[in-house]
Amino acid sequence: MEVLNDEFYMRLALNLAEGASGQTGVNPVVGCVVANNGRIVGMGAHLKRGEGHAEVLALDMAGDQANGATAYVTLEPCSHFGKTPPCCDRLIAEGVSRVVVAALDPNPLVAGQGVKRLRDAGVEVEVGILQAEAVDQNEAFRKYIVTGMPFITLKTALSLDGRIATHAGHSRWITGAEAREAVHTLRHRNAGIMVGVDTVIADDPELTTRLSVPGLHPTRIVVDSKLRIPESSRVLNEAARTIVLTTDRAEQAKAQRLIELGAEVYRSGDVSRVDLARSMKWLGENGISSVLLEGGGVLNGAMLEAGLVDKLMLFYAPLIVGGEGSPSAFAFKGPEAMSSALRLTRVSMQHFGEDWCVTGYPMGNGSSEDA
Amino acid sequence: MEVLNDEFYMRLALNLAEGASGQTGVNPVVGCVVANNGRIVGMGAHLKRGEGHAEVLALDMAGDQANGATAYVTLEPCSHFGKTPPCCDRLIAEGVSRVVVAALDPNPLVAGQGVKRLRDAGVEVEVGILQAEAVDQNEAFRKYIVTGMPFITLKTALSLDGRIATHAGHSRWITGAEAREAVHTLRHRNAGIMVGVDTVIADDPELTTRLSVPGLHPTRIVVDSKLRIPESSRVLNEAARTIVLTTDRAEQAKAQRLIELGAEVYRSGDVSRVDLARSMKWLGENGISSVLLEGGGVLNGAMLEAGLVDKLMLFYAPLIVGGEGSPSAFAFKGPEAMSSALRLTRVSMQHFGEDWCVTGYPMGNGSSEDA
Repeated sequence: MEVLNDEFYMRLALNLAEGASGQTGVNPVVGCVVANNGRIVGMGAHLKRGEGHAEVLALDMAGDQANGATAYVTLEPCSHFGKTPPCCDRLIAEGVSRVVVAALDPNPLVAGQGVKRLRDAGVEVEVGILQAEAVDQNEAFRKYIVTGMPFITLKTALSLDGRIATHAGHSRWITGAEAREAVHTLRHRNAGIMVGVDTVIADDPELTTRLSVPGLHPTRIVVDSKLRIPESSRVLNEAARTIVLTTDRAEQAKAQRLIELGAEVYRSGDVSRVDLARSMKWLGENGISSVLLEGGGVLNGAMLEAGLVDKLMLFYAPLIVGGEGSPSAFAFKGPEAMSSALRLTRVSMQHFGEDWCVTGYPMGNGSSEDA
Repeated sequence: MEVLNDEFYMRLALNLAEGASGQTGVNPVVGCVVANNGRIVGMGAHLKRGEGHAEVLALDMAGDQANGATAYVTLEPCSHFGKTPPCCDRLIAEGVSRVVVAALDPNPLVAGQGVKRLRDAGVEVEVGILQAEAVDQNEAFRKYIVTGMPFITLKTALSLDGRIATHAGHSRWITGAEAREAVHTLRHRNAGIMVGVDTVIADDPELTTRLSVPGLHPTRIVVDSKLRIPESSRVLNEAARTIVLTTDRAEQAKAQRLIELGAEVYRSGDVSRVDLARSMKWLGENGISSVLLEGGGVLNGAMLEAGLVDKLMLFYAPLIVGGEGSPSAFAFKGPEAMSSALRLTRVSMQHFGEDWCVTGYPMGNGSSEDA
């Protein structure tokens, strides 16, 4: 059982925030719990960009009982006017006497200013309770707010011997229902989902979020250097926003037809293959703060080689497919020396039915917080 | 903390048995704890083939205190004269009043006869405490005693994308020191270690057990259809027994020179490549009850395709090597349909430093107890 202490309340605040993961757009997820004299008097989470912050919702719930209370907030309260007034001012106005913060805000507009403002007003502030969990929870936001680049999570289902299909090209299904549900939850939690045009041509996926409850659909992103995407592709339907990444050399008439079908087309330069780095930057500038990469071996390999992948989630099925002629999850040449192979750090594992997910972060990738 | 009950004593008996794993030859590992009136009065494990059984050693230690005691034995006590007299008779003679058995002996010479003999003599017998653990502990013995075939454990170190070397052939080291120590412990625990001749030519390994404490060396087994093994190979040194598996077509003079160097040579028939099934049968007939397969991709693939692998232990390093031209852990073609891919069951995981080992059993392999 749990022990009632600062961590207890902060863990609850983290859970509140986690629940809203995927629905705050480019904003971070934030949770807040207000406790007064042994009772929780308010709870809140930031639910949607442009609407109330976690602190405001929790303080609204607490009403008069916020006076003399302790507020637990997963992210440093804001001190600037954004789409809403600064939360620091509200905490001070309500008479909150102590604020416990899990992690400082990496947003250069906040960055310690919130804590300072509270302290200057005589509020006791403590920083760092469950900080690691809070930082992980907003790993995408933390990259995006500082660099403007989307946080890229490479997800693939693969066999124990690293294959994504048999030598005959059959890939359905590698993993079981539980793993597939987890993947659809990832779609809900990411702003974009990216595949190569070969996947669109071969499988005609819709790339929407399909769960036992309604989920949010990510923006669909297709990497398509020569605009080979069929106009009848399901990914071009009205279920969600669609972006096609291509090059200056792709046919103008085809691009126009795609735009008429509702897609956005981004030309990444006068190059033979899509400039991935430039495209990711453009996605960031266009509100895509996180991307779930569900590529085939070639796109996955190219993204890894370009150093654009922040996180890998590898869903292993307990299968051995055999290595002659069956496609690899990462089709790039790699280095000569084993000691130079791409190494993952902060590796963890989680079971999904008979399958399990290995999560890790490429080492030496500048965007990784501990690299 | 643990609770003092039948399971407590049986778990200790299992630990005693586990300690002797690798040193009992074709015999099972067995542990025994004798408890009387709240005190452990005797402990024992079968330590070496031809020497005392676990029950005998524990009863020797207990002396007079065995009278009226309970004996916990991980494997059904024997009822037949083997290299030693039947343990049942000794338990009865010492006046043991209750015997708790984890698993029945699959040996057709025992197979319930031990339990019957004890009960006929008025001893209370209980069977099945921690049975699953006891069965797992003797999985190799249980296959060998029934089929005469060695239990084959395929071990390989591989990257997250299923590679055993880079495209340039570099393979040292994939996994770290902790995983390599675990592998050397596997060598100690297996009667034989098997590789392909290409590994001998490329790496010139000694294939002995190297640990921080002395270990037992397995019999070294080289699969070598054309007798290409260099006579200077370290695997032919005097550190351990060596068997070369070849075909009737291999050069007689080379075979003779290998025999003069101390190796045994088995010709598996008038075939172009070593008949693996026939060779495994011959190994079983020649006292090799368990084999650690440390093959390259081709030998691993061939053994898997032939249905000869009982267990896989895959040591993953958190590396991505890239799939263009880098050798696979399992170089066979495999089925067309993903649903026909080789599936592992009873999958478990264990960490070794930064690496981890995935252990599983091929489904539909007749030798697997639950298949």
